[in-house]
Amino acid sequence: MRVLVLGGDGYLGWPTALHLSEVGHDVAVADNFARRGYDHEMGVDSLVPIESLKVRTAVWHELTGKTIASYVGDLTDADFTYHMVRDFAPDAIVHFAEQRAAPYSMVDRKHAVYTQTNNVVGNLNVLYAIAEINPDIHLVKLGTMGEYGTPNIDIEEGWLDVEHKGRRDRVLFPKRPGSFYHLSKVHDSHNIEFACRIWGIRATDLNQGVVYGQQTPETARDDRLATRFDYDAVFGTVLNRFVIQSVLGKPLTIYGNGTQTRGIIEIRDTVRCIQLACETPADKGEFRVFNQITEFMSLRQIADTIVAASPDTVQVEHVDNPRVELENHHYNVVHTGLVGLGLEPHLLSDTLIESLFEITKRYAHRVRAEAMLPTIEWRKPSSVIGN
Amino acid sequence: MRVLVLGGDGYLGWPTALHLSEVGHDVAVADNFARRGYDHEMGVDSLVPIESLKVRTAVWHELTGKTIASYVGDLTDADFTYHMVRDFAPDAIVHFAEQRAAPYSMVDRKHAVYTQTNNVVGNLNVLYAIAEINPDIHLVKLGTMGEYGTPNIDIEEGWLDVEHKGRRDRVLFPKRPGSFYHLSKVHDSHNIEFACRIWGIRATDLNQGVVYGQQTPETARDDRLATRFDYDAVFGTVLNRFVIQSVLGKPLTIYGNGTQTRGIIEIRDTVRCIQLACETPADKGEFRVFNQITEFMSLRQIADTIVAASPDTVQVEHVDNPRVELENHHYNVVHTGLVGLGLEPHLLSDTLIESLFEITKRYAHRVRAEAMLPTIEWRKPSSVIGN
Repeated sequence: MRVLVLGGDGYLGWPTALHLSEVGHDVAVADNFARRGYDHEMGVDSLVPIESLKVRTAVWHELTGKTIASYVGDLTDADFTYHMVRDFAPDAIVHFAEQRAAPYSMVDRKHAVYTQTNNVVGNLNVLYAIAEINPDIHLVKLGTMGEYGTPNIDIEEGWLDVEHKGRRDRVLFPKRPGSFYHLSKVHDSHNIEFACRIWGIRATDLNQGVVYGQQTPETARDDRLATRFDYDAVFGTVLNRFVIQSVLGKPLTIYGNGTQTRGIIEIRDTVRCIQLACETPADKGEFRVFNQITEFMSLRQIADTIVAASPDTVQVEHVDNPRVELENHHYNVVHTGLVGLGLEPHLLSDTLIESLFEITKRYAHRVRAEAMLPTIEWRKPSSVIGN
Repeated sequence: MRVLVLGGDGYLGWPTALHLSEVGHDVAVADNFARRGYDHEMGVDSLVPIESLKVRTAVWHELTGKTIASYVGDLTDADFTYHMVRDFAPDAIVHFAEQRAAPYSMVDRKHAVYTQTNNVVGNLNVLYAIAEINPDIHLVKLGTMGEYGTPNIDIEEGWLDVEHKGRRDRVLFPKRPGSFYHLSKVHDSHNIEFACRIWGIRATDLNQGVVYGQQTPETARDDRLATRFDYDAVFGTVLNRFVIQSVLGKPLTIYGNGTQTRGIIEIRDTVRCIQLACETPADKGEFRVFNQITEFMSLRQIADTIVAASPDTVQVEHVDNPRVELENHHYNVVHTGLVGLGLEPHLLSDTLIESLFEITKRYAHRVRAEAMLPTIEWRKPSSVIGN
C-alpha cells in the first residue's frame, strides 16, 4: 500500500512511518515542523536528541535501502495539501498532523484559537482533498480518548445504542472533552462523520489514549532514528514525565488526588494499531471508530507502577490540579475493535519501564527540571507558558 | 439591562436590537456587514430594500428618541471584540454574528473553511472576552435545530438523560448535523459548554428553527427600519421562498419528497425569545439550551399551507434534493423551555401569511427568479454559487 503519514516528523508520526516502511508499504511523510517550533517557544527540547527529518530519512535509506519521501508544508495551505495528495497518490492517509497538547491549547486565547484553527482547517483540507482527488483514499485520523471526557456510563467505540422514550437509535457517542485541544478533535470527528455521510469517503477515527514509551524496533536500530521524548509539563505525557522525575530524584507530581483514570497505550502498540487500521480499511462511507488503548489506570496506579519499578526510592507528591477534571469518577472503556483486527497488546510491564529508565538516565543531563512544573491553569483564561 | 447584539445588522439581529430597545434596554449592535457582502458575491439582494445601519439607527432615534450604539468590525479580530465588550460593558451579549446559510457553507472548500473559521473563531473570541473582562456577562448564543439532525429518538433541549448498561448520566444531546454550517454551530455549542464548565460563565444556547416572516411591530413603523427578506436558494429560508414563488406564479419547489420535517418559528417570536432569554439569565456556570421553535411541520405541510393561503392557484413541484438528508424520518422535539419563560407562540396562521403576500407583491419586481433554483449540491465537494 501507499501510505502518507501527516505529521510524520512527530513523536508518533515518525515511528509510524518507519514501521509502515519496515513492513513493506510505500511511505511518505509530511510535516511543517510546528512541533519543533513549540519547543523554541517554551525553551525546552526533547529529552532524547532527534535528527532533522532529512537526516532521519537518509539514515533509514542507508540502513534498509527503503525510501521515505517527504513533503514539507502546512495542511492549512490547501494548495500544498492538494498537491501532495495528487503527487503521492496514497491508498491511505494517516493524519497525526495536529497540535496535540491540552495545556498548550489552554495557555491563552491565541493558543486556543491557533489550536482549533490549525487542527480543524487542516483536517477539512484533507477531507476535501480526498473528496476531490480520490474518494477511495482511506483516512486514518488520530483522535483522542479525551474527546469523551469522563461520562458516568461506559464509553463505547464512537457510537452508542440508545433507547429514549420507547424509541431506539444508534448515535454518535456524546462528547464532553476537557480542553480546547480535545474540543478540536471532537470538531474533527463531527466533520469527518459528515464527510463520510455525504461523499461516501472511508474513515477510521482512532481515539488514542495516553501514549508512553520511546522506542520501537525500528527507531532502536540507530540513535539517529530516535523519536522525541518529552518531559515538560506541556507536551510530556504523564507516564513519561513520572519516569523522568523518578530518575532525577524528584517527587512524582500527581495533579489532584490521582483518582483520574485514563486509557493508556504503549508506543509499539500505537504504531501496530495504525498498521492494522491501514491494512483493513473502513468501508466506503463508513465512519469507523476505535478506542486505541490497551488498558486504563488511575494516575495514582501509574505512579505506583513507577515507584515499584524504580531502582531508587521515589516520592509521590500531590499538587493542586491545574486542570478542571473530575476525580473519583466512573471509567470503563470498550476497546475490542483493534484487538479484533489482530492487536496483541503490550501491557504496562517492568520490562518496558526499565528501558525507559535507561534512556532517561542516559540523557538526564539535558533536563530543565523547572519545565516539569505546571504553569497553565484551566480556570484562568490566560497563563504564562513555561518556566 | 445593557445588551450588545452581535450581527445586529442582519435579518434577525436588527429586529432583535429594535425590540430590545423598544422594551427599554440599552442596546448596541455590532456588525462587519459580511451578510451584505454575500449578496454581492451571489448577485442577489434582499427582496425588501434595506437601509444602511447608519440610517437605520438614525431613523430609530428620530422616531423614538432612543439611541442604538453601533460597532463596526469583525469578531475574528480579537482587539475589536475585546474593545467593544470593555467599551459597552453589556449585561448580556446576543450572538447572531455568524455565517448562517447551510448551502453557502457547502459551495466548496473555501466556503466551508470560511464558515467554520469565521463562526468558531468569532465565538471563541467572544467567550474569551467574557472570561477576561467580566465573567458575569450572559451569553445568548444563536444555535440551530439543525445541530441535532434527525435522530430516531425525540429531541430534548440540549441534554439527554441516558441509561446504558445499568448506569445513568445526563449527557450533551448527540449531534449529527447536515452541513458544514450546522457543524460550525455544533462546534460552538461544545466550546461554550466547556467555557461554562471551566470559567463559570453563564450561557444560553438557542437552537433556533427555520424562521419565517419579515415584520415585527418595530420594523413595521417605517420602511427605513425594514429588515432583509431573502428569497434566493442560498439564504432564503423555505417558507419565505415558497411565498415568493407563489406570488411570482412559479411552482413551489420542494426538495425530494417533502416529508423532511423541521422546527419553525415566526420572526416576532424569535425576537421575543431573545428578550426572555436575556431577562432571565442562565445561572453562573450553566450551559442552558432551549429549542427555539414553536411548532414543526414537513416541507409538504408548509407548501400546503402556502397553497391554501394564496389568493392565486399555486403549483407544487418536487425537485431532486440537492442536500443529503433523511426523508420519512421520525421528528419530535421538546420545546417547553421558552414557553416556561413566558413565550406565547404565534403559530403559522393565515393572518401572517397574508402580510407576507402583501410585502412580496410590493417588491416582486426586484426578484431574480433564477436565484431561487438550487445550484449547490451536497454530494459534490465543489459547486458554482448562484445562477
